[in-house]
Amino acid sequence: MAEVNERDRAVFEAGIKLGALYHQFVGMPISLETIDDLERTIEQSVALQPYVRSISVSIDREMVQKKLNPKFKYCELEGRMLNVSLQILYKNTIAQAELVYDEGQDYPLMSVKKIEEM
Amino acid sequence: MAEVNERDRAVFEAGIKLGALYHQFVGMPISLETIDDLERTIEQSVALQPYVRSISVSIDREMVQKKLNPKFKYCELEGRMLNVSLQILYKNTIAQAELVYDEGQDYPLMSVKKIEEM
Amino acid sequence: MAEVNERDRAVFEAGIKLGALYHQFVGMPISLETIDDLERTIEQSVALQPYVRSISVSIDREMVQKKLNPKFKYCELEGRMLNVSLQILYKNTIAQAELVYDEGQDYPLMSVKKIEEM
Amino acid sequence: MAEVNERDRAVFEAGIKLGALYHQFVGMPISLETIDDLERTIEQSVALQPYVRSISVSIDREMVQKKLNPKFKYCELEGRMLNVSLQILYKNTIAQAELVYDEGQDYPLMSVKKIEEM
Repeated sequence: MAEVNERDRAVFEAGIKLGALYHQFVGMPISLETIDDLERTIEQSVALQPYVRSISVSIDREMVQKKLNPKFKYCELEGRMLNVSLQILYKNTIAQAELVYDEGQDYPLMSVKKIEEM
Repeated sequence: MAEVNERDRAVFEAGIKLGALYHQFVGMPISLETIDDLERTIEQSVALQPYVRSISVSIDREMVQKKLNPKFKYCELEGRMLNVSLQILYKNTIAQAELVYDEGQDYPLMSVKKIEEM
Repeated sequence: MAEVNERDRAVFEAGIKLGALYHQFVGMPISLETIDDLERTIEQSVALQPYVRSISVSIDREMVQKKLNPKFKYCELEGRMLNVSLQILYKNTIAQAELVYDEGQDYPLMSVKKIEEM
Repeated sequence: MAEVNERDRAVFEAGIKLGALYHQFVGMPISLETIDDLERTIEQSVALQPYVRSISVSIDREMVQKKLNPKFKYCELEGRMLNVSLQILYKNTIAQAELVYDEGQDYPLMSVKKIEEM
């Protein structure tokens, strides 16, 4: 049995943030006109949480365009539209993680990309 | 048994929007610095939906201030922090509804305020 | 300008419940094995709310089947999978409303079906 | 810079599940009568997700009791009411994590409790 260390903690926090963001925002009404603002709002909201060093959110405009209801001109934010990259800084460890839509698996995939112990 | 008319429809749509907004946004991380943007984001998101003529969202800064976590300096958006006023226009009928925190009942109260048949 | 009456209120409450349910539950992980329980949980949760006389929720098993991730064998609850019928009783008025996926419009449509003043 | 290993992945997945669960279910209408079922529903929903070995959810009945609206006899599920313990199995590594309300910090605290490399 291993002791929980700084690195575990940094990686764990990265997972929390991505899982939380996903289930908080999926379902939101969105259009091409509101995407920019929504990206900033999600970033700001995640950045408030503990140990977030940086966060960048981009929503797939092409997918939104395709999903727009022809009559009402909006759609709902789906997990597969989200591209997120974030860095957690926990004490001296940086964990970088991302959420990217994996077309092959048709799955919004979350993964740890890099861990730096400074 | 009464036929469903324009007025019913306007009032029904007002209810949908308030119920939806509430459960979409409650739980979001928020601070005094992000309130302004979040108010705009909620307004934009509701305004995209069918028959919304106008919408105004204001979040109670005093409640947010009191709920801020002392260590992490943010809190979660709660239903009682929300003040929302919206107008639905369905054909020739305007229904105005609001969500306001009722302190006496400790309940986020939604109500129809006004109906105008033009 | 018309005064807000019992009927308006019944219809308004029906809208609130459908909008709320939609945005609370969309995004939930779901499989063919958990559908039955989830339907009951949604019903129970809505039935707790003021003025709900009855509620019936059914989730489209065929759509769920099609959306199951081949590797992980689950999918997310989508608005279009939901069939909901509910009755609001406000004083002496019953409003019946439903949420049904409209294939033609590719839209989860909410509508008032019947109003009875007793 | 360290390579991402099995252990990182197990811990990351634990974080995802707790963050997701929190933001999916917070806000749900709940009463003392529906708690048992809701606990099972949350457990089932999390258990569907990749790499979940076990999950146990318990909701604080005392807090729910205190928060019940006196008129309507229900309240909303809050993060602080949730006690969750879960195990992730990723390849040969088990990560155990929990969500427990920390009264001192008035914060729903998520933490990694144990890591076993088998």
